[in-house]
Amino acid sequence: MKNYILRDENAVFFECGYSCDNEIFICVNGYKFFITDARYAIEAQEFAKSDVSIICTQTSVIKEARFLLRKLKPKNLVFDPFDFSYADFNQLSSSLGVHFIQKPNFSKLKRIIKSQEEIQLLQQAAKFGEKCFDEFADFIRKNGENMSEEELFFNANLIFRQKNTLGLSFEPIVAINENAAKAHALPSKKKLKYGDLLLVDAGVRYKKYCSDRTRTACFDENFNFSKEQKFKNQKQQDVYEIVKQAQIKAINIIKPGVKAKEIDLAARNFIAKAGYEKEFFHSTGHGVGIDIHEFPNINKREETIIKEGMIFSVEPGIYIQNEFGVRIEDVVLVTKDGALIL
Amino acid sequence: MKNYILRDENAVFFECGYSCDNEIFICVNGYKFFITDARYAIEAQEFAKSDVSIICTQTSVIKEARFLLRKLKPKNLVFDPFDFSYADFNQLSSSLGVHFIQKPNFSKLKRIIKSQEEIQLLQQAAKFGEKCFDEFADFIRKNGENMSEEELFFNANLIFRQKNTLGLSFEPIVAINENAAKAHALPSKKKLKYGDLLLVDAGVRYKKYCSDRTRTACFDENFNFSKEQKFKNQKQQDVYEIVKQAQIKAINIIKPGVKAKEIDLAARNFIAKAGYEKEFFHSTGHGVGIDIHEFPNINKREETIIKEGMIFSVEPGIYIQNEFGVRIEDVVLVTKDGALIL
Repeated sequence: MKNYILRDENAVFFECGYSCDNEIFICVNGYKFFITDARYAIEAQEFAKSDVSIICTQTSVIKEARFLLRKLKPKNLVFDPFDFSYADFNQLSSSLGVHFIQKPNFSKLKRIIKSQEEIQLLQQAAKFGEKCFDEFADFIRKNGENMSEEELFFNANLIFRQKNTLGLSFEPIVAINENAAKAHALPSKKKLKYGDLLLVDAGVRYKKYCSDRTRTACFDENFNFSKEQKFKNQKQQDVYEIVKQAQIKAINIIKPGVKAKEIDLAARNFIAKAGYEKEFFHSTGHGVGIDIHEFPNINKREETIIKEGMIFSVEPGIYIQNEFGVRIEDVVLVTKDGALIL
Repeated sequence: MKNYILRDENAVFFECGYSCDNEIFICVNGYKFFITDARYAIEAQEFAKSDVSIICTQTSVIKEARFLLRKLKPKNLVFDPFDFSYADFNQLSSSLGVHFIQKPNFSKLKRIIKSQEEIQLLQQAAKFGEKCFDEFADFIRKNGENMSEEELFFNANLIFRQKNTLGLSFEPIVAINENAAKAHALPSKKKLKYGDLLLVDAGVRYKKYCSDRTRTACFDENFNFSKEQKFKNQKQQDVYEIVKQAQIKAINIIKPGVKAKEIDLAARNFIAKAGYEKEFFHSTGHGVGIDIHEFPNINKREETIIKEGMIFSVEPGIYIQNEFGVRIEDVVLVTKDGALIL
């Protein structure tokens, strides 16, 4: 792709090694331009890759992009229609004499197979994420009794940030019993008691790259986030084992050449057979990279062929409204021999 | 406005009292609909205003919105062209038989004058924000010496979140000397020493409503964030007094009936006269509400007439590259008698 324009922060970071919250990136005939305003221009000079020219606008990044495109005169320019608002795209493109070509998600598609360097960063992020889970488990074992979801959430935030040496992939989800049946629960005043089911979904960012992991565990004196769990309640135990098996089924099927939907269906069909088809209402996974949601999507309709170097989550779940929810999630790397859990 | 559609999280919160990260809000003939997916549907039922019908989609919120609009058959529907991506708007609107009317920022314009309830929430947010500044000053006075910007940033994050009883309006800015010349600096490994200039820009969210404040101060044994500051360096002191006076000039001119640009120019002309026109390269202020950036904009071209009940920041600054930067910011409420600092 010769000529393209990008606005999304993570897509621009991928190109430049720097990004901020007001920028446009343009690549025309191999020349690269990063347009921003005076608040960020000094840092952009300092941190962006050396082959990128920094332009500091006095007006707006959209107007500056028009001005630059008038000078560069590319015939065609690829853009992502999800990357610009309807208003911004119209302002950018109207009577400019440039033919804009829609390519939805072209930056994410470009990033669907990770480079060696990216794989290492994602492995490192996963390692840090795992360490934070262990630390959070220790904290909960020692201090968790009678703590509210809000307090647990606060401490998860603290622990996963590691004194701000790490960022967060997203705000951690910490949910007890019936709140875990909401796949994305807000923390409440509900307090943790011995015997409760606790679901934690959290990830860290290391040099912008994301980790993502979910564990469901029983709170008792031996509390931990391993996949071996003993619940006090038999139904919880049964559902937990179904989700655990479903994840194994999905992971075992992964290798170069299978379709994404085959992975989803491996987990989905197993859960359906066990009688919980309706209680697994989201897709089995999503790519993970600089964005927490990248490609490939792992859902029941996705025809994408899985290839070596793809990295995505595998996270089946069963959610029984007003009772409890179980989800188990790992991020895997596709190797020529199959899936490797990061 | 009878019929409209919204997607922005804060705009939807304003209508519904609840919002999440995947939703569309539609109001047709007074009937209100909140479309989301299964991850958020239970919470939406629980927290959204009682006159809003919750729709849980099995496909996508855009497809569900099309389906609903086909049934409701509104002739016209107002939308904000900044609120939908180019792709989403085209998917939403194509061959639907509904006439979509562009009204840029109509939700923010609706919110430009705050209700009594909103004013109270913003006052409360400002109070909490001030309290956090005081606490952060105590912390710095006791522990700040030799702390890096990164460590200061980490502790600002901790203190301003108040054990997660508050959210953040944005990530705090903590910048020493020449880093303060970058209006939006990233925290670095640079360490705080006695005699340094320290700029802190931070705000909290109370029940979604934002506070916003900036102080520039000299780090010494009496460290505090009051506006009376004694710098070791004469140039810093001179520039500080200019910015302080510029802010007073701007605040003093505020009353119902003046134009936004008059407020900007009151600060800008004063700074220009003192010889720092180019070193004040951003606008004087912005509205503050559920969004940290609302209307009115306070810049040198803005013709908006100021009215009672508007709430916005007043934040002139002078940034001398490679030396230092000074900004002083408060949020004010417009009353019939003039500006009231929150």
